[in-house]
Amino acid sequence: MKKLSIIKIGGNVINNKNALASFVKDFAKVEGLKILVHGGGRKASEMSTQLGLEPKMINGRRVTNQANLEVVTMVYAGLLNKNIVAQLQQNNCNAIGLSGADANCIKAHKRVVKDIDYGFAGDIDHVDSKIIKAFLEVELTPVFCAITHDANGQLLNTNADTIASEVAGAMSNDFDVVLTYCFEKNGVLEDVNDNDSVVENINSETYIQLKNENIIAEGMLPKLENCFNALQKGVSKIVIGNPEVILENSNNYTTITL
Amino acid sequence: MKKLSIIKIGGNVINNKNALASFVKDFAKVEGLKILVHGGGRKASEMSTQLGLEPKMINGRRVTNQANLEVVTMVYAGLLNKNIVAQLQQNNCNAIGLSGADANCIKAHKRVVKDIDYGFAGDIDHVDSKIIKAFLEVELTPVFCAITHDANGQLLNTNADTIASEVAGAMSNDFDVVLTYCFEKNGVLEDVNDNDSVVENINSETYIQLKNENIIAEGMLPKLENCFNALQKGVSKIVIGNPEVILENSNNYTTITL
Repeated sequence: MKKLSIIKIGGNVINNKNALASFVKDFAKVEGLKILVHGGGRKASEMSTQLGLEPKMINGRRVTNQANLEVVTMVYAGLLNKNIVAQLQQNNCNAIGLSGADANCIKAHKRVVKDIDYGFAGDIDHVDSKIIKAFLEVELTPVFCAITHDANGQLLNTNADTIASEVAGAMSNDFDVVLTYCFEKNGVLEDVNDNDSVVENINSETYIQLKNENIIAEGMLPKLENCFNALQKGVSKIVIGNPEVILENSNNYTTITL
Repeated sequence: MKKLSIIKIGGNVINNKNALASFVKDFAKVEGLKILVHGGGRKASEMSTQLGLEPKMINGRRVTNQANLEVVTMVYAGLLNKNIVAQLQQNNCNAIGLSGADANCIKAHKRVVKDIDYGFAGDIDHVDSKIIKAFLEVELTPVFCAITHDANGQLLNTNADTIASEVAGAMSNDFDVVLTYCFEKNGVLEDVNDNDSVVENINSETYIQLKNENIIAEGMLPKLENCFNALQKGVSKIVIGNPEVILENSNNYTTITL
């Protein structure tokens, strides 16, 4: 099977203009077939504040009412996605920006309300690997933003880590998929304040251990759940690290294995 | 050659939620290959005002500074484009939303400053009919917003009428293209206040006459220039009318011929 690199960026890589420009240059150099998934960073919260809306988070996830959904649709699918695509084009990478609604790539449903009502948050039902493969076959590089749809006309705000893992899982039937989560840190850290304390490898057993010791907590928990989910769906390799990992210029990163 | 319908919507069809929903339903029913091009309507101006920016127009065209470019990118490529795509998906039309940067579909350059500096306004250099054809061949319906790029990383605000005519012209090499401009009126009107005063046909001769008589003025002038441009590039038929024309439910519309 052909190798397919799926790279997700978030955090400061998105927030900082220079960091993003530098990442985009490196991503354009990644050889072979590739897909980019990007989060939203701070910009959506800034825009909400500018418009007089209060961003609301529960357990590290945004609560999305109608007004907030409009903002994330504008910022993720519009501003960020199209600027990233334009910068990739500048670097001779033939990118195509996609939400889950486009070409019906990613179908989701509005998250079922249990204790918390997350509003227009989407949980993914289906990734159309066939159409994504068709894009790759005409030498396009899909760039996914964190917006999906329910096929009933409703757009949904969807966690970008989850989009990356679900797309990676779905593409594993046809490709040898390497999934990389990029952010400003070197990897999963034993001490969140020490960028040299990278945990070299996490597997399902050490994961439980690290969780019990509270070394992995908060935002890192759903990210790792996504990793194990992707591995179970056949993803070959998962790396968490800083942007240098995508050109294999770093020896300091975390790999996730089953 | 296969027939390809290219339909551009703007004006109140975009501004009014119910009119848009009704248009989307009808567009989904149009048989055969099709492409949608949408303008931005009032929403971008409203958003600019909400953000404390002053929308500025000269000769019916928006002057786009950096802040305004961010707004139109958010509203056209994000909010409007993705909502239209999601609604088309709901109506079983497999739409894919595109800016000119996506798949490098439409390359433009920043408009050269003569008397007026239009800022980040794009004049189109090239439409990649090959990739658009590839989308049609995998049964996707492209939905273009009014944003292009210069291939040097710069997004550009581009008149949607012009996008429709340039895409129509480029696709005419491979398809029998029918281009339809849809808005709230029945067509080009002799008396702008009388929706029954539709000019049935305009050709390059009667165009000059109507222009001299001031019957065609302002926003209609660039629209008609676009029409003649498209006809010269091989477009088979051009219709200007209300949304009913797309399902051929109206006998009251304007055709443009050379």
